Amino acid sequence: MAKRLGAQTVALTGSVSVAAGASVVGRREGEGPLRERFDVVGSDAYFGQKSWEKAESVMLRRCFETLCKKAQVSPAQLHYLLAGDLQSQCTASVFASRESAVPFLGLYGACSTMGEAMTLGALLIDGGAAETVCAMTSSHFCSAEREFRLPLEYGGQRTPSAQWTATAAGAVLLRAGNCGVLVTHITTGKIVDAGVTDAANMGAAMAPAALETLKAHFSDTGRRPEDYDAVITGDLGSFGHSLLEELARREGLAFPKVFTDCGMLLYDAARQDVHSGGSGCGCSAAVFAGHILKCLREGMWRRVLFAPTGALMSTVTSQQGESIPGICHALAIEAREAE
Amino acid sequence: MAKRLGAQTVALTGSVSVAAGASVVGRREGEGPLRERFDVVGSDAYFGQKSWEKAESVMLRRCFETLCKKAQVSPAQLHYLLAGDLQSQCTASVFASRESAVPFLGLYGACSTMGEAMTLGALLIDGGAAETVCAMTSSHFCSAEREFRLPLEYGGQRTPSAQWTATAAGAVLLRAGNCGVLVTHITTGKIVDAGVTDAANMGAAMAPAALETLKAHFSDTGRRPEDYDAVITGDLGSFGHSLLEELARREGLAFPKVFTDCGMLLYDAARQDVHSGGSGCGCSAAVFAGHILKCLREGMWRRVLFAPTGALMSTVTSQQGESIPGICHALAIEAREAE
Repeated sequence: MAKRLGAQTVALTGSVSVAAGASVVGRREGEGPLRERFDVVGSDAYFGQKSWEKAESVMLRRCFETLCKKAQVSPAQLHYLLAGDLQSQCTASVFASRESAVPFLGLYGACSTMGEAMTLGALLIDGGAAETVCAMTSSHFCSAEREFRLPLEYGGQRTPSAQWTATAAGAVLLRAGNCGVLVTHITTGKIVDAGVTDAANMGAAMAPAALETLKAHFSDTGRRPEDYDAVITGDLGSFGHSLLEELARREGLAFPKVFTDCGMLLYDAARQDVHSGGSGCGCSAAVFAGHILKCLREGMWRRVLFAPTGALMSTVTSQQGESIPGICHALAIEAREAE
Repeated sequence: MAKRLGAQTVALTGSVSVAAGASVVGRREGEGPLRERFDVVGSDAYFGQKSWEKAESVMLRRCFETLCKKAQVSPAQLHYLLAGDLQSQCTASVFASRESAVPFLGLYGACSTMGEAMTLGALLIDGGAAETVCAMTSSHFCSAEREFRLPLEYGGQRTPSAQWTATAAGAVLLRAGNCGVLVTHITTGKIVDAGVTDAANMGAAMAPAALETLKAHFSDTGRRPEDYDAVITGDLGSFGHSLLEELARREGLAFPKVFTDCGMLLYDAARQDVHSGGSGCGCSAAVFAGHILKCLREGMWRRVLFAPTGALMSTVTSQQGESIPGICHALAIEAREAE
């Protein structure tokens, strides 16, 4: 049974583990600093399909299959599949999951979706509704660009604050019991809208939401940033990360070196021409499943706060003059000797 | 703590109540057989806004405010807000919830979203992660038509199997403890794709998913349809309802008179020119909050199975030649003397 702590946080009293992770990424992501960390690196943007949307579905399905194989579970053993993506009506997840025959719950939290999926998966297990759950998300540069911005053929110039939507999928297996890496606390974010209207500066739209969720987490748990080996937002990019630091300083909050961001970890921004860094549901998902989870397993980190952020707009709302609401969900995850 | 029953069902061992409901609908819905059941009936499609998308958000926000007022709770007392809609990137829910300051979890399950929201809300409470949760969804005829089909100005002729996307919002307050109407069992659906490609016949796309979830529910719980005063799918419409009956008969399953459908309850189809009946996330949500919940409260029904169905396609997937996957989530809800 979960125990509520403060206004936005629950402490998990049972043992809920991140038992396994899988990641599948595109070519550019496979040329970045984390290249050795991913299970599969695609050779192009198509994954053998004729459209980018189908390519994204196939990439995510492959990620799901890789997870099942690595964790040695069959889909029939999964109690729930929690998934979401950036395509309209979350169709990448639907078509990736269509043949799985696992009870399916579709989510939309923009680039925060992996945080939401892991939140709900962990709480379903903690509450006894499930023993084994898969949480997964994806994004694809090409399907996202035409969904949110401009046709790729247009060749528009990107601003320095723009982020590069990762072609990436990440999946984790959550399981009852102690498998060595546990979800211990979950802080669920509120929607925060600071009035940013520039869809090429999503870091600015999401940083205020990240600040609010981190403040709530530290306040609810009584912990400080220093209690974590890493506090990893995802995906503010370098612009948004700097802005988060600035916002934290204005409020007199510490912003130690443990703060980093999935969008900054995925690419070598200067060399790979991705401007402010990575974004997209798949960015934090693949960085978590491919990198963060391994850092915990390998003993490099003992305790991390994983805090995916999302920008909750659509092209329609932007065209109708709305600003971009942000959200951020945080999960405290730590390595413990497996029982 | 929830207890798993069979492959897809959980039995709630604690007391999780549907403590209150609220509904806001458009003019056409307010002229149907349930007209007296809704809290607010709008006078036009705009709810004072300049676009249909903003109108939908305002309608849903008004529904949320009505719920809080009726239940005498302030948003600050809510532990989670679970919401979704049909707009791309679920923006109706985001903008409706933007000022609420409630931890927000966005969902996408097409017209099954109210089933998904109530499922997760009830399980969060049962598992101790929350005491009070709001689950809500909306749809709007005009925003959905241009999202999924054709510009309204085109004036396209509708086929007999077409359904009318309800301009409607529904919200329920879920609460720990026995307030007189309890969620007792939850069966979460798998994605079922029978290969239907006609976006004007979503009943046919969803009926196989409804059948699978209902079969799983009866098998997992050992109950029969006759154990319910009403088994209410939402929203197959009259075409999909007939098809469900046909599919059930082929498998030798009973299909007694207790089976009905939110899409058939919302309108007087012949008089209101809605062809096969209502659809849209808001249809089952408003019919549940406005009508079904009251039938339980008023003693007309003692036990119902509420089974919202969704068609998980987008215009992009349809244009790319994909068929329409369906899904259905079922909740057993019953009236008990409040403690």
